[in-house]
Amino acid sequence: METRRIAAVLRDGQPDETVMVRGWVRTKRELKGFAFVEVNDGSALASLQVVLNADLQGYDAAIARINTGAAIAVGGTLVASQGKGQRIELQATSVNVYGEADPETYPLQKKRHSFEFLRTIGHLRARTNTLGAVFRVRNACATAVHRFFQKRGFLWVQTPIITTSDCEGAGELFTVTGLDLDKLPMAAGRVDFERDFFGRRAYLTVSGQLEAEVMALSFENVYTFGPTFRAENSNTSRHLAEFWMVEPEMAFCDLAGDADLAEEFLKYAFRTVLETCPEDMEFFNLRIDKSVLATAQNIIESEFARITYTEAIALLEKSGRAFEFPVEWGLDLQSEHERYLAEVCFQRPVIVTDYPVGIKAFYMRLNGDGITVAAMDVLAPKIGEIIGGSQREERYDVLDRRIRAAGMIPEDLWWYLELRRYGTVPHSGFGLGFERLIQFMTGMSNIRDVIPFPRAPQSADF
Amino acid sequence: METRRIAAVLRDGQPDETVMVRGWVRTKRELKGFAFVEVNDGSALASLQVVLNADLQGYDAAIARINTGAAIAVGGTLVASQGKGQRIELQATSVNVYGEADPETYPLQKKRHSFEFLRTIGHLRARTNTLGAVFRVRNACATAVHRFFQKRGFLWVQTPIITTSDCEGAGELFTVTGLDLDKLPMAAGRVDFERDFFGRRAYLTVSGQLEAEVMALSFENVYTFGPTFRAENSNTSRHLAEFWMVEPEMAFCDLAGDADLAEEFLKYAFRTVLETCPEDMEFFNLRIDKSVLATAQNIIESEFARITYTEAIALLEKSGRAFEFPVEWGLDLQSEHERYLAEVCFQRPVIVTDYPVGIKAFYMRLNGDGITVAAMDVLAPKIGEIIGGSQREERYDVLDRRIRAAGMIPEDLWWYLELRRYGTVPHSGFGLGFERLIQFMTGMSNIRDVIPFPRAPQSADF
Repeated sequence: METRRIAAVLRDGQPDETVMVRGWVRTKRELKGFAFVEVNDGSALASLQVVLNADLQGYDAAIARINTGAAIAVGGTLVASQGKGQRIELQATSVNVYGEADPETYPLQKKRHSFEFLRTIGHLRARTNTLGAVFRVRNACATAVHRFFQKRGFLWVQTPIITTSDCEGAGELFTVTGLDLDKLPMAAGRVDFERDFFGRRAYLTVSGQLEAEVMALSFENVYTFGPTFRAENSNTSRHLAEFWMVEPEMAFCDLAGDADLAEEFLKYAFRTVLETCPEDMEFFNLRIDKSVLATAQNIIESEFARITYTEAIALLEKSGRAFEFPVEWGLDLQSEHERYLAEVCFQRPVIVTDYPVGIKAFYMRLNGDGITVAAMDVLAPKIGEIIGGSQREERYDVLDRRIRAAGMIPEDLWWYLELRRYGTVPHSGFGLGFERLIQFMTGMSNIRDVIPFPRAPQSADF
Repeated sequence: METRRIAAVLRDGQPDETVMVRGWVRTKRELKGFAFVEVNDGSALASLQVVLNADLQGYDAAIARINTGAAIAVGGTLVASQGKGQRIELQATSVNVYGEADPETYPLQKKRHSFEFLRTIGHLRARTNTLGAVFRVRNACATAVHRFFQKRGFLWVQTPIITTSDCEGAGELFTVTGLDLDKLPMAAGRVDFERDFFGRRAYLTVSGQLEAEVMALSFENVYTFGPTFRAENSNTSRHLAEFWMVEPEMAFCDLAGDADLAEEFLKYAFRTVLETCPEDMEFFNLRIDKSVLATAQNIIESEFARITYTEAIALLEKSGRAFEFPVEWGLDLQSEHERYLAEVCFQRPVIVTDYPVGIKAFYMRLNGDGITVAAMDVLAPKIGEIIGGSQREERYDVLDRRIRAAGMIPEDLWWYLELRRYGTVPHSGFGLGFERLIQFMTGMSNIRDVIPFPRAPQSADF
């Protein structure tokens, strides 16, 4: 008897076929002479309805052990379902209970549980409808990332997690050490990192960009897709201490090309998820956020607006809105401003470019006006900034000045500077927080519910 | 004029087509009235030969700036090549020099460089033939990992990098901390980790397996592909402090099914790389290790042998060989033993199963004999162990005993134990060190040369 995944049975199964399925019991209803058991194996949102007749050998013993959460294998014949809600069901001829789940203690009973509670049972929560759907969408989207870039000839490069360059502000870095913290070696009253594993102080990376630039200047088009870290003490629904980032980097590419890629990428990701996980996406639209499907269609179908930061400021100034944060050329855009631009002004995603040099990172290319840089943020309705990118400063002298102006030491970035000495080219890239994207796609309100094992302040369970 | 990647031009370009290519100059030969310039953009091992005629506008100024390492864009017409070694070449009609490379200081001149030297210029070494080929093969193989598992309905799950469970021996763990090491908070003479970012001591993960088991018990088949860490002070050609691991995990699967998957996976990975990167693989066979292609064919074509550990010991005992390390039931197999089995006894990969309980991890399923566990190692000719896996202990009581016997505290693994209380099933998985696989495929002798930015003791540059 062929073993099949439940998604395949629900989609393609035909009456009279004999199949074996395996999975975990969602519900059991005992009636006179038979029982209905819903079995789910994680391959689909829907469960397969199994009918166990009382004349099945060992029925009484089995049915007593089949409770919500139990793991079972059922063999039988598919029949057209007479009940509502499913096309096909499985008439059991054999059943095997692998593992029981005591109904007195199993935490996932049929009632609804809060996402807060589910976070305390991270080892079981993926067995719920919502988290199951989240992780299927996450997988579909992660796979789409690779397919998108590989189709375009981009090389996936693994940039280092442990780094000794502290490039974007020390306050948010985790230290990585092989030292025994109870017996730290000291030199002149300070920790002697020369005696640490790497011979100097090491951190968890906040971005693979600088190393991706190295690879782009050998392979033209590359991307990273890996974990990054922030030791930021932000206990919010949009921050994680550990999250995955997608960072493409392209040689011979300017900011306009970068924006093109960002727009294409977002459209592709949404289209793929709608095609791959239609039931899951409908579930989110029905149960989590009624705008999920409309938002996805908006991303897929609309041409993204493109305006400069200076134009954005003008739009905000003449909006007549009383914003909480001030609107003034030179100040960064806040979430309320970003959402106004995307939701009210354009009602579609908008790419804002050419920000003031003072509010952007040292590596962004200085524009001819001397006061803005070739940066871009992609702002989406409902979420605000989803992608941030820039053309990189490829001119040695300008970059050297910018590094010094940022209070950093050029010698620490000698290799990054040398890329501008040997075969430098215009190049651009962007960063996309993968969990923010999944949050955006699914409408889940807390980012801790779109990653299997979230890491946040005071929280690193499982 | 259409811009094309050099790999596409070399493969499909036809005489009289006009194209633009971009890349970095490998060599320049000035002759009377014209110059040959080899341009490489990382898309292929081979470079494109560009012919610049002296009547080209701005020829003298351009040719003076075109040196090894310079970044250029060349437009022109493809012509059949009269020279040896290439089918087609580009007759330039325009040339643009983006970035020069001073021949006095550019470190990558035409001569051969040692891999040791190249490691000191990690920002440039990917521009060499060998490292370029390594990273193309690495990308092809990484993509094959995803394709293999996605085709089979496995979900890619991102398991946490930062972990608070210390499961496989504290000595090899890096500590992750948000504390200021110069001002550690103390309590009763020891570091007070309650005041650290996560409220307790945190580490970098050594494996995603335990969390992958969580996900397999919701989705049946899952895999991880992400970075893992060892703070092991091993300065060898086979160890990295940071490396990528592939870890599939399958519910309702026993050790034999696990071994089947491992064998299929290795065959698929080698086949894909041979198909995707034939020139690169021939280059390794020619320049790095003359057995690379034969080894790949052996993996693809041979049925892997399968023997038990007990049988392996018997084969070693009757081998008549004088091994450096003792051969005795109960002792672990050393590299010399593994290679003897794969290279001499079987001349193909061999999967050794059912190791003594005393030398394997607590989570491996205890066999009926009470003295062996359902573990497997895949041993390959020339490299030894390439995959390690096991059926996991799914019985609550047995696992609880094994945890205690290993000197660990069951409460620390409460969630892992609970998976055996609620819907437990037989399940299995394995781990594959991705860099070891790339080393094996390419014949590269040092593992630091198959990852873009290697991390090892005293070494975390770039």
